[in-house]
Amino acid sequence: MTLTSTDPRTGVASPTALEATSDAQVDSIATAAASAADELRRMPRAARAALLRRIADEIEADRDALVAIAAAETGLAEPRLNGELTRSAFQFRLFADAVDEGGYLEAVIDHAGDTPMGPGPDIRRMLVPIGPIAVFGSSNFPFAFSVLGGDTASALAAGNPVVVKAHSSHPLTSARSFAALEAAARAAGAPDGVLGIVYGQQAGAALVAHPRVAAVGFTGSLHTGRILREIIESRENPIPFYGELSSLNPLIVTPGAVTARGADIAAGLFASVTGSAGQLCTKPGVVFIPRDGDAVVDEIVRLAKDAAAQPLLNGGIHASLFRIEHALVSAGGAHALVPARVGDTGFTATPAVLEIDAAQLTPAATEEAFGPLVVVVRYDTLDDVLAALDAVPDSLTATVHAQPDELDAAGPLVDDLSRRVGRLVFNGYPTGVRVSWGQHHGGPWPATNTLHTSVGVTAIRRFLRPFAWQDAPEALLPIELRDATTSVPRRVDGILRLATLGA
Amino acid sequence: MTLTSTDPRTGVASPTALEATSDAQVDSIATAAASAADELRRMPRAARAALLRRIADEIEADRDALVAIAAAETGLAEPRLNGELTRSAFQFRLFADAVDEGGYLEAVIDHAGDTPMGPGPDIRRMLVPIGPIAVFGSSNFPFAFSVLGGDTASALAAGNPVVVKAHSSHPLTSARSFAALEAAARAAGAPDGVLGIVYGQQAGAALVAHPRVAAVGFTGSLHTGRILREIIESRENPIPFYGELSSLNPLIVTPGAVTARGADIAAGLFASVTGSAGQLCTKPGVVFIPRDGDAVVDEIVRLAKDAAAQPLLNGGIHASLFRIEHALVSAGGAHALVPARVGDTGFTATPAVLEIDAAQLTPAATEEAFGPLVVVVRYDTLDDVLAALDAVPDSLTATVHAQPDELDAAGPLVDDLSRRVGRLVFNGYPTGVRVSWGQHHGGPWPATNTLHTSVGVTAIRRFLRPFAWQDAPEALLPIELRDATTSVPRRVDGILRLATLGA
Repeated sequence: MTLTSTDPRTGVASPTALEATSDAQVDSIATAAASAADELRRMPRAARAALLRRIADEIEADRDALVAIAAAETGLAEPRLNGELTRSAFQFRLFADAVDEGGYLEAVIDHAGDTPMGPGPDIRRMLVPIGPIAVFGSSNFPFAFSVLGGDTASALAAGNPVVVKAHSSHPLTSARSFAALEAAARAAGAPDGVLGIVYGQQAGAALVAHPRVAAVGFTGSLHTGRILREIIESRENPIPFYGELSSLNPLIVTPGAVTARGADIAAGLFASVTGSAGQLCTKPGVVFIPRDGDAVVDEIVRLAKDAAAQPLLNGGIHASLFRIEHALVSAGGAHALVPARVGDTGFTATPAVLEIDAAQLTPAATEEAFGPLVVVVRYDTLDDVLAALDAVPDSLTATVHAQPDELDAAGPLVDDLSRRVGRLVFNGYPTGVRVSWGQHHGGPWPATNTLHTSVGVTAIRRFLRPFAWQDAPEALLPIELRDATTSVPRRVDGILRLATLGA
Repeated sequence: MTLTSTDPRTGVASPTALEATSDAQVDSIATAAASAADELRRMPRAARAALLRRIADEIEADRDALVAIAAAETGLAEPRLNGELTRSAFQFRLFADAVDEGGYLEAVIDHAGDTPMGPGPDIRRMLVPIGPIAVFGSSNFPFAFSVLGGDTASALAAGNPVVVKAHSSHPLTSARSFAALEAAARAAGAPDGVLGIVYGQQAGAALVAHPRVAAVGFTGSLHTGRILREIIESRENPIPFYGELSSLNPLIVTPGAVTARGADIAAGLFASVTGSAGQLCTKPGVVFIPRDGDAVVDEIVRLAKDAAAQPLLNGGIHASLFRIEHALVSAGGAHALVPARVGDTGFTATPAVLEIDAAQLTPAATEEAFGPLVVVVRYDTLDDVLAALDAVPDSLTATVHAQPDELDAAGPLVDDLSRRVGRLVFNGYPTGVRVSWGQHHGGPWPATNTLHTSVGVTAIRRFLRPFAWQDAPEALLPIELRDATTSVPRRVDGILRLATLGA
């Protein structure tokens, strides 16, 4: 089956030279990845870091073509796509630094010694790669969460082969991205089979079911996430599933914040809701504004009414936006202050602003609408907010806009939000996720599977497993666990030690 | 429904005063645990460490009664049970040390600063408790993997409430253990509801389904593990499942090792296979002996024939041992060198030694027989071993007995085993798992879910999740993430720093 590529700015689909991957091809790609795993594991960390840096170089060298192709397949603006490509390259280099540093290995040495239970053997532990990783790119980040995205970077940094499932909304971007990956792999001397790509929904399912695939990274809908989990549960050996599935990202503005900086907040919020046409996993989808915060709401309404239509990523997302907006009003009881309007061409739409009273908020009013839509919830007291939050699904982020003298009163709210999300933002906006060591992009279900991040350096941990050597001859130990090694941080006999220069 | 307690040494069941927990009671216990979670999270780490140490003290103070009750419910010998109780107490104290040290928090501070993508906000991350944990104790470790076991210690150390599901084979031990936990909690000023216990299979299922339960730790059969996963997948919010389910633990003896220390190996292996009546998750269940290693096999056979019957933990395990032994012979094609025999009283049995040729090894010959049974696999070359390993399920451990001059030749075998297990043991035995920082007790499915250990300090990580604060006012940050704090190891702006004395 030949694949098509659709320009969401026009809605015109064009044939490509790409074909859906057959089950037999998936098998051969996954098998090749498994064969490459051993050789990749034996590459020194420095060689793997060099591979990651080479990838960053390759994608920057092909920047113009990649951005142009992605713009035609996603409708995202070129400045945004350029920034995203920069982020992807930065991410590969940051992860290369982490591989060089070696702290991610969590190396531990317990020398043989007496314990209350008798003599204890020598035990040495570190994290090792788990095997070929299936990576499902998302529609909304054709670079940073797709073929060149954080899951690919994490899996390779950890030392695993990667097989990506190209997103059906940007097949040509995926193919061009994959070519950059492959060029880097060749240049860096990575083993054959360490990178693979498959196309088509059936190929994705076959990949998740493949016995040699060791884990799945997925960014997409809750519905598809559930289907992939079902495939995993029907495997003989269930494997880890890292899904980033859905997030409402509640944002609360206190009365003091409205008074002190209402206009700024209206502008910042509108930008956060409508940036990239609202198609960000951290878009604040439900925003709590006090009853006497009309000035803020009026300004958001004004901005929304004035806004031009923007293209959404594909026809499905475009149709869903209007379907969900309708459901939020009809079943959810929200009132459309500004309804979304279909634009003149392709899959374009204007922003929507809905309003509902905190006391009326139910789960029917908090379905995620992926696109430039925000539900404004009006409240009288912070206790009303607390009560209404039970209708909001757990999320990646929550945001509080509050003045310093309100922090004590907001304490219970902050505590409550902490249980519901993975990142708490103060007096800012959750979109624009910083890629750094401390970032956490994850939250209780349905945001993710709670335990790990998909952005930031610690995302590497998802694709590693601990391994212990007991009384192993030194020659069989990895270099990082030999006694004389001091070049990586380690915990030795219970005491954490920094790396020192030298071996 | 009133529960009974059965003495496996006699097979006699006696009524207890314990009742199966109703669904309504499970709901109230889980809800109380969720309410306690907030208060527990606010306890300073030092107070939580004190709670863990107090638990160790309480269980040691009640040692004699606990051991006597457990002996009558499990048939395990008192020296073994005393050692196990010592291990449980040690574990609580070791985890208290880890809580005090604070490295497990993985604290990270990224100060605000410029990035290639523009200005980056201040991001601070550390691990936080995930919420109430359901702990399913195992039959074979009434202390170290049950109410007082590693899952309870890990979950509490992480700062989570715990609800244990008492094992039906040792309800009185569970109740007495729980009383020690509760006494410690009261003495340490822990919040009400932080500890709960439920009895009965239905209560266990209700616990796993309960919306306020945040994760499940389970040690038991593959069959029950699959049932619990099904319950989890049918939840509105699937939660992490940490199952330790089944393990064959292949052990390979090279020709050189047979020549150099055949008699020692026979004795050590027999002890490892039959200790605790072979009811250890790390028991070597399949052992590769070279064709010309008759001396080793003959000695194991002699020891097995001479061995007295030992009680197994319960009637189910006793019946399974004989059923599986029969299947290994009839469907698996193994030959019984020494068949198991039923003892004179209760659920007792003598050891079994089966033999099969490496070329004949199929999955039908590698079902785990929980009890004193070993399958000896005879081989001609290490390549035969490599080929035969495909019939062995992935395991917690693998063991190699080899002479120093054989290590080069054994390289491919060691590589292959590394992919299949979580711990590799050299010239020793996998049973007797050291509790330490570096221990890893986990392996690819069906051993565990691969990514985490259930023994050793890093087991705490299973019950934590990352959390990030963005631009948070200092007063709202946990003490461990404030700039002035130096008492825990942290990564600051990418650089790992050790703790220093003081704040």
